[in-house]
Amino acid sequence: MKTKTRDVQNEKPLIGVKLDRVGSSGIKKQVIREADGDIKVMTPVIDAFVDLKPSQKGIHMSRMIESINEIIEKITKQKVFDFEDMCAEIAKELLDRNDYASYSEARVYADFPVERRTPSTGLRTQEVHKLIAKACAWRDKTLRKSIGCSVFGMNACPCAQEMMYGYSKEKLKELNGLSLSDDDINKILSVIPMTSHNQRVEGTLIVETDEDERIELNDLVSVIEDSVSSGIYEILKREDELAVVICAHNNPMFVEDSLRLILKNFYEKHRNLKDNTRVTAKIVSFESIHPHDAFAETSITVGELREIFG
Amino acid sequence: MKTKTRDVQNEKPLIGVKLDRVGSSGIKKQVIREADGDIKVMTPVIDAFVDLKPSQKGIHMSRMIESINEIIEKITKQKVFDFEDMCAEIAKELLDRNDYASYSEARVYADFPVERRTPSTGLRTQEVHKLIAKACAWRDKTLRKSIGCSVFGMNACPCAQEMMYGYSKEKLKELNGLSLSDDDINKILSVIPMTSHNQRVEGTLIVETDEDERIELNDLVSVIEDSVSSGIYEILKREDELAVVICAHNNPMFVEDSLRLILKNFYEKHRNLKDNTRVTAKIVSFESIHPHDAFAETSITVGELREIFG
Amino acid sequence: MKTKTRDVQNEKPLIGVKLDRVGSSGIKKQVIREADGDIKVMTPVIDAFVDLKPSQKGIHMSRMIESINEIIEKITKQKVFDFEDMCAEIAKELLDRNDYASYSEARVYADFPVERRTPSTGLRTQEVHKLIAKACAWRDKTLRKSIGCSVFGMNACPCAQEMMYGYSKEKLKELNGLSLSDDDINKILSVIPMTSHNQRVEGTLIVETDEDERIELNDLVSVIEDSVSSGIYEILKREDELAVVICAHNNPMFVEDSLRLILKNFYEKHRNLKDNTRVTAKIVSFESIHPHDAFAETSITVGELREIFG
Amino acid sequence: MKTKTRDVQNEKPLIGVKLDRVGSSGIKKQVIREADGDIKVMTPVIDAFVDLKPSQKGIHMSRMIESINEIIEKITKQKVFDFEDMCAEIAKELLDRNDYASYSEARVYADFPVERRTPSTGLRTQEVHKLIAKACAWRDKTLRKSIGCSVFGMNACPCAQEMMYGYSKEKLKELNGLSLSDDDINKILSVIPMTSHNQRVEGTLIVETDEDERIELNDLVSVIEDSVSSGIYEILKREDELAVVICAHNNPMFVEDSLRLILKNFYEKHRNLKDNTRVTAKIVSFESIHPHDAFAETSITVGELREIFG
Repeated sequence: MKTKTRDVQNEKPLIGVKLDRVGSSGIKKQVIREADGDIKVMTPVIDAFVDLKPSQKGIHMSRMIESINEIIEKITKQKVFDFEDMCAEIAKELLDRNDYASYSEARVYADFPVERRTPSTGLRTQEVHKLIAKACAWRDKTLRKSIGCSVFGMNACPCAQEMMYGYSKEKLKELNGLSLSDDDINKILSVIPMTSHNQRVEGTLIVETDEDERIELNDLVSVIEDSVSSGIYEILKREDELAVVICAHNNPMFVEDSLRLILKNFYEKHRNLKDNTRVTAKIVSFESIHPHDAFAETSITVGELREIFG
Repeated sequence: MKTKTRDVQNEKPLIGVKLDRVGSSGIKKQVIREADGDIKVMTPVIDAFVDLKPSQKGIHMSRMIESINEIIEKITKQKVFDFEDMCAEIAKELLDRNDYASYSEARVYADFPVERRTPSTGLRTQEVHKLIAKACAWRDKTLRKSIGCSVFGMNACPCAQEMMYGYSKEKLKELNGLSLSDDDINKILSVIPMTSHNQRVEGTLIVETDEDERIELNDLVSVIEDSVSSGIYEILKREDELAVVICAHNNPMFVEDSLRLILKNFYEKHRNLKDNTRVTAKIVSFESIHPHDAFAETSITVGELREIFG
Repeated sequence: MKTKTRDVQNEKPLIGVKLDRVGSSGIKKQVIREADGDIKVMTPVIDAFVDLKPSQKGIHMSRMIESINEIIEKITKQKVFDFEDMCAEIAKELLDRNDYASYSEARVYADFPVERRTPSTGLRTQEVHKLIAKACAWRDKTLRKSIGCSVFGMNACPCAQEMMYGYSKEKLKELNGLSLSDDDINKILSVIPMTSHNQRVEGTLIVETDEDERIELNDLVSVIEDSVSSGIYEILKREDELAVVICAHNNPMFVEDSLRLILKNFYEKHRNLKDNTRVTAKIVSFESIHPHDAFAETSITVGELREIFG
Repeated sequence: MKTKTRDVQNEKPLIGVKLDRVGSSGIKKQVIREADGDIKVMTPVIDAFVDLKPSQKGIHMSRMIESINEIIEKITKQKVFDFEDMCAEIAKELLDRNDYASYSEARVYADFPVERRTPSTGLRTQEVHKLIAKACAWRDKTLRKSIGCSVFGMNACPCAQEMMYGYSKEKLKELNGLSLSDDDINKILSVIPMTSHNQRVEGTLIVETDEDERIELNDLVSVIEDSVSSGIYEILKREDELAVVICAHNNPMFVEDSLRLILKNFYEKHRNLKDNTRVTAKIVSFESIHPHDAFAETSITVGELREIFG
């Protein structure tokens, strides 16, 4: 079934406009690696794009997939790999193979598991988080890469909790037979974790750096988990469940608080990063008292964080 | 562009197997009606199917859409309509137009708004719930129709709350300077809404009846909202928010409790329905302390509910 | 249940970082309007955000929803409304009510129906497309608003079609008993719509303008439908189906071609827009020969389009 | 943080109704195995349920997750495992650990990769399909398990193709200068793959058996791929792309045809299964000429298939 046909993609297009991103999205690929006795296998979803100059009709779609395949084969034999480096390799390969392109981009979305222990009984659990990696390469050799993750946690609302304090104080004052002083009431309320509405939240943290920097993905997971009212767990014994609920109500947070804490906690662990590192963070709170979500999002450079936190 | 071609769908198939359901899914249609000064407009997603006898190669897909179009046009001129009746009309029309079919089915998914007031300040709010309607028609004139909805609410966990009672009692006993008796402590704890983890839940209630019965959709919304720890609202003033949180913690519920309460609350409002009415209910709880959901689901007839509740 | 509590949101935050976007997402609201005898009702999903200065702990979430409610009530009484103007009203109201904010943003996602006729029999059909509207307002009175839509169509692949020409030519040359000249073969192949793989594509076109410009949403729908191999329809009679398939194969297009055509077709209808108008367009093709999608996306100003197309 | 609290779940419920399914849904777990040098790693999503008798208030949710964890640890050390057997193990363990339950159920959803070669150049590709496994266990030792998959393919429409034949015949008759006989025209049209609309389809095939039967998952993938107009591939060289398009147009199929062919192809490979084996199959076609999908679904036993196919 051999055919000689003209290469339609290389023709001059009728409309000479540059296009930012042309490629394939939603490519699923299994990536297997064994390093230091630890097997890492994931089935990421991959997007890959190049730009298109005004004088070129189309890209060669099958080259996108070939590049991705070959990078994955190469990775499977290497010692260490991170998904952001895989993206960087794909982006560079795309520029090599598509000489009409001046820009290329690769994105990877995957699930990744992290081992942990529950807060009270120390039971081993495994949490599966979402990974987001990306690389953007330019013909002039510049390359920016990103690594990030989305992690679930729990927030208790400070505002409702504050109202519950007020409400509880009044109720204790009205209590028949027990004449409690203001001081007694404060003492009592200081030892009882005060009720609020609480809910699952999803924190997302993405860090964009130059090619020569390196971010540990598990550190980003910790930053998010340390910036919500409490971490949450696939499995909890009763004592653990109690510990999580107490922890959450001792650390009530708005989405705004969590977002700012993410930036602070991230910066404290990553002061050595260059000023041009960009941090993008987001919190979505699946409000238990509303059918809609609370939302906060921001983007800032490490240089700007340095000015704020010193 | 007129063409004379043979009708491929009417040919004898090579493989003579009966098929249960053949048709179109995901048809979006705007349905507009004005009745008693109240405009009802929705853009439901519609599925429509017929069965296929072993000797018929294919259905006529465009007839599905034509039937749906004509029913919707008819409805737009009528006085009253419910989506389950629209499904019934579509299902009957499908049998009329496809003489090779012995069974037909139509399903509708839509958003629908319900007006309400917040619990404390009485502010008007509008909640948008999901509607699920269905009709199954047989050639022998039997027809079963379903109407149901999915509604968000909030559950507080009874188990974590019970542990918090124990924890708070111990903390109060240990309190320096304030020697509280067990009785004092019980009094104190009886007036303070006790903390627990709480979360958004989604309750679903679907009722399948004979064609001559009628269910009020808004009643199903109320049944679900009365069967969770608290209803939730698009808008809440501060006093409302406090009222919702107190209400939820005064009514702690497992998904199992909510599911049983849905059945009980439904039955109390709908005793007059025939024994062959089938009630299917489900609760999904987006656990704030876990990344996975708690889930409960059951199906029962009104006849069975009558035996239980009398 | 009246309570006097301190306003937690107005407190000074522990971490003084500015946040870009804080608010509510996923708010569902029914919007009803009757204008010129035509009823427009939709149930959009709304997001609304303000920024947060370093010295302010939190926003007042309930004010977001109140602003949205009041705008919608106002709109329901007005003569004309577009969703981008509704977004502009919400964004302005958010700045008015949140004096600590220097920026606000409102987004709306909705389904909207468009009436059309099928290409051959002229049957009336209704297509339901997705609408995307947005407004960004700054304290200094600048406001940018966007309106756009996502519309389904169909693309036939030029590359596979070109190969099919080559294949068909060879097959016709080899045909026993019928000695066809090259010229005969070209004549034959010029009247038979040549096979290719074809598939559903989704085109998205979003236009961002200053507040005083106006874009007709239905024009954007037409631009997309005119930029794919063929428009597609909820209902098609046989002659219509034939016409759609012939049309698609007479206009084979890559995603790159469609994207460039969208820009050209848009510009031809909207030359009068200011240079600072920004056009963002995207095509996703659900490839029939691959499990992944083909993708093209670009962003350009009307000023830049003017330089290219004159 | 030790606490002595009553076991709320074991209390008598206020409403004594049996519940069909109570448990956890959406549990993500990494499952790793190395067998015969081949590493299999997946991150399935798992649901697990038990029923609840009228006299029991609630289940012990954490036991669900503990059971799942222990089964997965056990599996990681075993020689052979299939996901339906993992479900069976979980379901049995759930009955063992929850003595109040008379029924249990476990479901697994995962991505799984299959290696293949492209049809013309023989290039190696990897397709990632969706796996669906389930087990239902009863206290009386009965157990039914299911294994199935969803696989993408491509269908070309027989009806539009038939119309294109008619249209092409007329066009060839009208051709100036070339007086082709009916016989000539038939010859010409027999060698040119005739145009139609074609599109991505998703076929799903699930087989429910007794515990002692075994189905090879890869066989189910092949059954689906053999029952559509053509298989589709992550990567295709030009010659492959041509081969796929020709193959699809030489095998035009309605969703009805594909569904019946799945049943036939399945039965031919699995005659030895018991009569009580249940086969459920579905085809969804993402129509290129419509914004909605074509759909066909049916369920039949191997006993019934035996009566039809012998």
